[in-house]
Amino acid sequence: MLKVPDHQVAGHQGSHGQPGPLIDDSGRFYKPLQDDDRGAIEAAFYTSFSSNTRVPDHIRRFFPVFHGTQLIEASDGSGQRPHLVLEDVVSGRSHPSVMDVKIGSRTWYPEASEDYIQRCFEKDRKFSSLCLGFRISGLQLYGSEESELWKPERKLVQNLSADGVRVVLKKFVSSNSPIDPNLNPDFAFASSVYGGSSGILAQLLELKSWFEDQTMYHLNSCSVLMVYEKKKVLKGGSSDAEVKLIDFAHVTEGNGIIDHNFVGGLCSLIKFISEILTSPDECTTKVCLQNSDNKNEILTSSNECTTKVCL
Amino acid sequence: MLKVPDHQVAGHQGSHGQPGPLIDDSGRFYKPLQDDDRGAIEAAFYTSFSSNTRVPDHIRRFFPVFHGTQLIEASDGSGQRPHLVLEDVVSGRSHPSVMDVKIGSRTWYPEASEDYIQRCFEKDRKFSSLCLGFRISGLQLYGSEESELWKPERKLVQNLSADGVRVVLKKFVSSNSPIDPNLNPDFAFASSVYGGSSGILAQLLELKSWFEDQTMYHLNSCSVLMVYEKKKVLKGGSSDAEVKLIDFAHVTEGNGIIDHNFVGGLCSLIKFISEILTSPDECTTKVCLQNSDNKNEILTSSNECTTKVCL
Repeated sequence: MLKVPDHQVAGHQGSHGQPGPLIDDSGRFYKPLQDDDRGAIEAAFYTSFSSNTRVPDHIRRFFPVFHGTQLIEASDGSGQRPHLVLEDVVSGRSHPSVMDVKIGSRTWYPEASEDYIQRCFEKDRKFSSLCLGFRISGLQLYGSEESELWKPERKLVQNLSADGVRVVLKKFVSSNSPIDPNLNPDFAFASSVYGGSSGILAQLLELKSWFEDQTMYHLNSCSVLMVYEKKKVLKGGSSDAEVKLIDFAHVTEGNGIIDHNFVGGLCSLIKFISEILTSPDECTTKVCLQNSDNKNEILTSSNECTTKVCL
Repeated sequence: MLKVPDHQVAGHQGSHGQPGPLIDDSGRFYKPLQDDDRGAIEAAFYTSFSSNTRVPDHIRRFFPVFHGTQLIEASDGSGQRPHLVLEDVVSGRSHPSVMDVKIGSRTWYPEASEDYIQRCFEKDRKFSSLCLGFRISGLQLYGSEESELWKPERKLVQNLSADGVRVVLKKFVSSNSPIDPNLNPDFAFASSVYGGSSGILAQLLELKSWFEDQTMYHLNSCSVLMVYEKKKVLKGGSSDAEVKLIDFAHVTEGNGIIDHNFVGGLCSLIKFISEILTSPDECTTKVCLQNSDNKNEILTSSNECTTKVCL
């Protein structure tokens, strides 16, 4: 009954004797509880959040539904293990294009161990988090052919420059091949995926309003997952675009202070997406000064307008 | 003609052979150009900003008017030295209550030297910046008597907890003595200083909208100065509340990315001020987890409602 999910783009995948998530055919997602504090923190967050009457319904829909924890056989055959039982956010979609964006220029937090802080501090500087206020943690994009799927390695997308991110955000909503480096993304579906009253931008703005006000939780190192149904859009149907927040293994109490790190990063992502809707062809002449050794011609050559990039 | 300003609450003050700012009686403020990069960066920012046609007028008013640079005799008698000639933002006010709030959970930036980054990183964690998204860098508050002026030392205010900041923000707009530790701040002038269509909150929200959109400048380590005329308010007059941005010695180019660090911190400050207007008596039961050795009874004892503080 349980199987490995097809559409996971980031996070811990089962490998080398490490259990990964599982799904069933009733729309549930089973995430193994991590042994250290992270498992306990994520379970505590879901428990708190799901019974918190101060969370409005229109915000609750951005979080996976929580069905408690359950002992099940781990995916790596290591025996029974407690799993979080969550809503499978891509359940019922046949060709979901998915992007996982880790929000915040900082993934660490004051309460963390010194060792964890130092590791995150270095990563945030190395990847695009510090520069952009977020980093793309993973994605999968379907092309116009069902068989065409672009699922770049995480290391290729998490240290993109601003221009690299612009290209990927355009590819995400394009009708032409995401793989062919000679094609400029046509962002043909920008208005149906990002735009409109139920599009991704509107959903992100709704989240932003709540984060400017809520002082209960700080969602350190949490991701915004953006999903839509590519097959339907290609046939002229609705995009069924959806935003979900995932990964709460580093949530801390807000203690009466807004999550300003999350707000800042979310505002930055919102600005990138707004620009694709309002001025998609504007030339970018200056870019992120961040250095990276990772040259990636696929991502840069499709943006002819850019005069300088630092991928 | 030139004299040392009466109402400076933060920043480099003239001392120990270090030149400080000067003012004249025509409303100009002379800020000595720092010898290192900082002076050049601040002059470059003012030059760029003052001629930047993409800055709307309603935003320009939040920045001191720039009158170029001028060689004048330094305040410490060390001879002629170039100074930035700026608008004196408290000129014409006899009893200005002033608060300097350094915005951002992070005062460093990727382009800075490793040494500078490490120093700021430690300071941001030690002071309230990391926790709150800003820190109070200095303030002066007049009481109901003209002679009564509270001007706490910088080290007393820059590492306040969330509750300490709430108390100071209330004291800032109170009619009773800011010095007497047995008095709860009555925030009698909250609506006339923070509230209304021309109050401080409205001005901060206007700034926020611009910062969510502008990608030209990153105002690292910049301060929001909040000023109003205490004497006039005590007599039932208008508060003449004003917000100004100051200190641009660490500005960097935005390169097409919003200043997400500034946006996050500004949103946090806005939330603190909004709460004083909308739910000033709400008890705060959880507070900033930041540690500090600096016990300050004056600031904590006046907030009876608070169950735990970490000043």
